Amino acid sequence: MSAKGEQTRNHILEEAYKLFAQKGFKQVTMKDICESTKLSRGGLYRHYAGTDEILSEILSRDYVIADQIEQGFSARKILEELLGALKEEMLDSEKSLSLAIYEYASLGNEDFFIHVNEQAKKRWNSLIRYGIETGEFKKVDCEQITDVILYSYQGIRMWSRVIPLEKDTVDHIVNMIRELLL
Amino acid sequence: MSAKGEQTRNHILEEAYKLFAQKGFKQVTMKDICESTKLSRGGLYRHYAGTDEILSEILSRDYVIADQIEQGFSARKILEELLGALKEEMLDSEKSLSLAIYEYASLGNEDFFIHVNEQAKKRWNSLIRYGIETGEFKKVDCEQITDVILYSYQGIRMWSRVIPLEKDTVDHIVNMIRELLL
Repeated sequence: MSAKGEQTRNHILEEAYKLFAQKGFKQVTMKDICESTKLSRGGLYRHYAGTDEILSEILSRDYVIADQIEQGFSARKILEELLGALKEEMLDSEKSLSLAIYEYASLGNEDFFIHVNEQAKKRWNSLIRYGIETGEFKKVDCEQITDVILYSYQGIRMWSRVIPLEKDTVDHIVNMIRELLL
Repeated sequence: MSAKGEQTRNHILEEAYKLFAQKGFKQVTMKDICESTKLSRGGLYRHYAGTDEILSEILSRDYVIADQIEQGFSARKILEELLGALKEEMLDSEKSLSLAIYEYASLGNEDFFIHVNEQAKKRWNSLIRYGIETGEFKKVDCEQITDVILYSYQGIRMWSRVIPLEKDTVDHIVNMIRELLL
């Protein structure tokens, strides 16, 4: 894709993200996305066939760490970057996609979420194993800690839409992950 | 209240719980609850003025541990009972109220949820402090562990409605709590 095309797609994903966070999945239409992105109908459909395609692309975007492991970066450094990204996401409660996830899942997209969940698990597992190998992390139970990380993250994403989130709470989760691993 | 009244209320709460878990908050009507409970309109309204009153009573019901602490039960024993209850709830994904919580919160009931959340925090904090006092628990950071427990629990409640939950996952969370404390 051209650089311009790439830029348009990113713009669409960003604007759609805000709409999904605000209204869930079902109530967002392609028309809404046209309006927020200031694209014509044709301009939007050139890139995406529907809101489901857009949401699934948003949810599939991943913080990629495989390259960093391959290049032999310090596990500790990769961890700190991941935690930084997690923390930023958790604090930005306006951008929680929990409701959209719920609604999209209820429309029969279970397999998609099984895949998303597996990818997230794989990412954390590979980092934790790598950190144990390099001797930077404690010899922990990989699968167990991965579940604690992913589910406490999801719990915060959900509840931050129900009650105002205290900054302490996010620090508690991030510090716990750090203490468990380092 | 008479024993009979108490029994009827419990029956209403049980049936309404199933409906809220299945359909969220907004789509459940008093008429639905009449049908599930086989109560007349008058019979139901004698106990509750509306679905909001019923949901808020369900969400306020709490596993009470203050008495057990007062009576000097072993902290370890109380913990195991609490973990048993948590585990049972997490495995019963059909009974997750996450969607109902979302919807009820979005109708402007933030204060109610702040209260529910505070009660849950208080409960875990008091148990952890008690366990540290009796020397049964490690000298952990109370608030931090409480947040990890509550949010990983909520994360599971939410995602168990999105993808099928593996039994391992629940064990991972419960074992982690146990390892952090004991």
